Amino acid sequence: MNIGILGGTGKEGAGLATRWALAGHSIIIGSRDAERARSKAAELREITKKLPIVGHTNVEAAELGDVVVIALPALGLAATLPEVAPACRDKIVISTVVPLTFGGPRLFTPPPAGSAAEEAQALLPEAKVVAAFQHIAAHELVEIDEPINCDLLICGQDPDAKETVAELGRSIGLRPIDVGGLSNAGPVEGITAILATINRRYKLKNSGIKITGL
Amino acid sequence: MNIGILGGTGKEGAGLATRWALAGHSIIIGSRDAERARSKAAELREITKKLPIVGHTNVEAAELGDVVVIALPALGLAATLPEVAPACRDKIVISTVVPLTFGGPRLFTPPPAGSAAEEAQALLPEAKVVAAFQHIAAHELVEIDEPINCDLLICGQDPDAKETVAELGRSIGLRPIDVGGLSNAGPVEGITAILATINRRYKLKNSGIKITGL
Repeated sequence: MNIGILGGTGKEGAGLATRWALAGHSIIIGSRDAERARSKAAELREITKKLPIVGHTNVEAAELGDVVVIALPALGLAATLPEVAPACRDKIVISTVVPLTFGGPRLFTPPPAGSAAEEAQALLPEAKVVAAFQHIAAHELVEIDEPINCDLLICGQDPDAKETVAELGRSIGLRPIDVGGLSNAGPVEGITAILATINRRYKLKNSGIKITGL
Repeated sequence: MNIGILGGTGKEGAGLATRWALAGHSIIIGSRDAERARSKAAELREITKKLPIVGHTNVEAAELGDVVVIALPALGLAATLPEVAPACRDKIVISTVVPLTFGGPRLFTPPPAGSAAEEAQALLPEAKVVAAFQHIAAHELVEIDEPINCDLLICGQDPDAKETVAELGRSIGLRPIDVGGLSNAGPVEGITAILATINRRYKLKNSGIKITGL
């Protein structure tokens, strides 16, 4: 599958790109700056020994992707998504975004839309937005010889879109779990605040979660 | 330890009471209706074969408990907590409360205070409120011959209070994990919405979470 990653030069986007490239997918790293995207793509080709990793602008990454992944900072959604909206029409768009505020009184405050994923859906009204991959630590993604010790929670409105995202998760060794509609994206994103707190408190880099009883 | 449980006649409160009684603690089941509390206490004495389980009003349960547990519905906090506030002064108060709305557009919406636990802290300003036990399924608590397959996430402002809550968790076989201050209670409570959705979707009664990498 061709996967376009908006903000693919960041740690989380590049980490997912690495794992997906190794699983045989073709990757388009997107960035505001096409030169940075090309440079990151070259770096990931070196790491993975896989050729189908290219760098483009975010708009081109959205156009070239069969599936589009948002790996942008939460505060960057309103600036970036409107210009990619036409390219995302009818496509599955995966929001990995978490609105965390470090150094403030509260690490996680849901945005007015309820979640970053619902904000993305409002900015991309004709896309099928699915929230997923918020808990997979970037540090774990780049340890490519180790399995990822975390479940993949998936929420969204479209069952077929969720199944495609589940398949993308399985392709990198994750167990997908359907956690309902996009209205559950706020609690899903909030879990990242818990993991970030655990990482800091216990001096870890890659805490994760597993669902028990399933 | 003497543990007073406000709303101890409900499933979660009674389930925690059962496990703690078996671990050797003394339990005061609280209810608006002292007769219902006495009846539930008698039932739990029968199940556990432990004598120190008594039933009282919520106010008396708060007075008698060294630690006070809130196992009330989220919408019941404003009605019940003001009358127990004097009895909770300087005590550790554990909020197990989760503000879920079934049948609405959104299962979990944080209250204006940020979380039920922060609402409880505002109503009990002189207590040491700790948020915990929201993810331990009532159905799992009553299966007294089985270990509980879930981690105990704990957040609050007072380190000593959190350590006491951790010890109460260890006494029933749980692994306690410190997840920061009470400002993280919203994300902690939100996890219950995810687990409730998983239970419904996968036809389970007792999904839970484990933190990996720790």
